[in-house]
Amino acid sequence: MSPSTADSTGDTPRYREWLSVALDEARAGAAEGGVPIGAALIDEDGRVLGRGHNRRVQDDDPSAHGETTAFRAAGRQRSYHRTTMVTTLSPCWYCSGLVRQFGIGRVVIGDTRTFHGAHDWLVEHGVEVVVLDDPDCARLMTEFVDAHPDLWHEDVGAE
Amino acid sequence: MSPSTADSTGDTPRYREWLSVALDEARAGAAEGGVPIGAALIDEDGRVLGRGHNRRVQDDDPSAHGETTAFRAAGRQRSYHRTTMVTTLSPCWYCSGLVRQFGIGRVVIGDTRTFHGAHDWLVEHGVEVVVLDDPDCARLMTEFVDAHPDLWHEDVGAE
Repeated sequence: MSPSTADSTGDTPRYREWLSVALDEARAGAAEGGVPIGAALIDEDGRVLGRGHNRRVQDDDPSAHGETTAFRAAGRQRSYHRTTMVTTLSPCWYCSGLVRQFGIGRVVIGDTRTFHGAHDWLVEHGVEVVVLDDPDCARLMTEFVDAHPDLWHEDVGAE
Repeated sequence: MSPSTADSTGDTPRYREWLSVALDEARAGAAEGGVPIGAALIDEDGRVLGRGHNRRVQDDDPSAHGETTAFRAAGRQRSYHRTTMVTTLSPCWYCSGLVRQFGIGRVVIGDTRTFHGAHDWLVEHGVEVVVLDDPDCARLMTEFVDAHPDLWHEDVGAE
């Protein structure tokens, strides 16, 4: 089973609007000198429950991936099944584990080319995955990885 | 492939010493009215790089599982391959994803009976898993789950 692409759904404009929140976060991270990955947790009515970006550099915190930061910012929720995690980049095992453990129902992803994380695994386990293949998300990451390969490898635990 | 048990290794005393750090953390969490799960990240020489406990209740933070809190407390590390995550309870998908993503080499677990998380999956992916089957860890969790089932279900995303 392959992840859905946005073109196969009628919800593309809404997903792109959510992605713009995540992309704003990623850009804020870049402006702070950090890893430019942003995310937001959205409720079933399209409201932003929490948003955030990677803060490894800013907070010296290796656990602060974009998705985790957005999840934390949303605070305690009774259920995640009807929420959507929108992220500028394919989620790594850590963030995909978060999605699976808490039963987040949908993940909308800007870019899967710069980094192919564990989103296929999420599809296998019943999560709706929408890949928007967004050129702005991809460009932000490509430029970052080219400029700071060591920081990027550190962020995903590669050596 | 089944996880190792402590009895199969000569390192049991060392692992039990590390587990006592995690158990102290779990007890501190219990004393604060929180979810009693503790963890520590240990380097190859047996030094504690970071330690912590679940802080869902204390910080209103659903991302603060014991293992993640210990990982965060350890700060940025160049490599995790020779580190050990010791935890009082079998790690959930979120914390197991953390272990896999950052290449933590070994996980030592106090209790897998109260909650069977994703440690089998870690074994499948090359992580050394040691199960100590510790009665104190099990008792702490059993008493907590009996007294606060809703809080426990919330912590693992169950409904």
